[in-house]
Amino acid sequence: MRLLASVQFGRIAFSRYALPVIRPVDHIVAGDEIIVYVGAAISISSYQQVVAYEVDTIDHRTRLGWCVIVTGDAEFVSDPAEIDRYHALLTGHPPEHGDRIIRIHPDIVTGVEYVDAASGR
Amino acid sequence: MRLLASVQFGRIAFSRYALPVIRPVDHIVAGDEIIVYVGAAISISSYQQVVAYEVDTIDHRTRLGWCVIVTGDAEFVSDPAEIDRYHALLTGHPPEHGDRIIRIHPDIVTGVEYVDAASGR
Repeated sequence: MRLLASVQFGRIAFSRYALPVIRPVDHIVAGDEIIVYVGAAISISSYQQVVAYEVDTIDHRTRLGWCVIVTGDAEFVSDPAEIDRYHALLTGHPPEHGDRIIRIHPDIVTGVEYVDAASGR
Repeated sequence: MRLLASVQFGRIAFSRYALPVIRPVDHIVAGDEIIVYVGAAISISSYQQVVAYEVDTIDHRTRLGWCVIVTGDAEFVSDPAEIDRYHALLTGHPPEHGDRIIRIHPDIVTGVEYVDAASGR
């Protein structure tokens, strides 16, 4: 979670109409929760839904870095004060029509570090 | 697909036991198909299954770059000659026990380019 908090964006995966969906999104970590700005374009269920969230720093050239994967329940943030506060932190501007923010409650957190083969893995 | 072929890794998302799974993986593009090395650790169904595949070059600092998302059927590559050829291209070493390679038949391909706000989006 510390590594995840050190980066500001990742990829969220969930099912929609029984098909897998994956999108790059921005996030912050607040307490034990991951707060994700999904804009107006991402249609997760309005009900609680399980999502997977992936953050990595894998370098395209060296292929070194780390990867953290979280699985947990997600739900829309509905409290207006929270929406305003998170929106400012995530986007730097006020909410626009249809903008949505979700919170993920991490249930499973796994991580992999990719290090130089010469120094082991 | 040209952009996707210019990068060697991405993130694959699929459902397993009705839960969303996301993993960073290496890929190549062969003809109209995306060939993905999933190693021994990723358990997609042995049957054909729909997956989402995401490749991006989003910069952690500037947040600029592009993102390509593909949805399509995936299946294990089973032809031994293809396995050997793809394995050499993807990993540079011969297959090890349990190593798996899948092919994705792209059905939907979408892309987003993130450019500097000053120059539009």
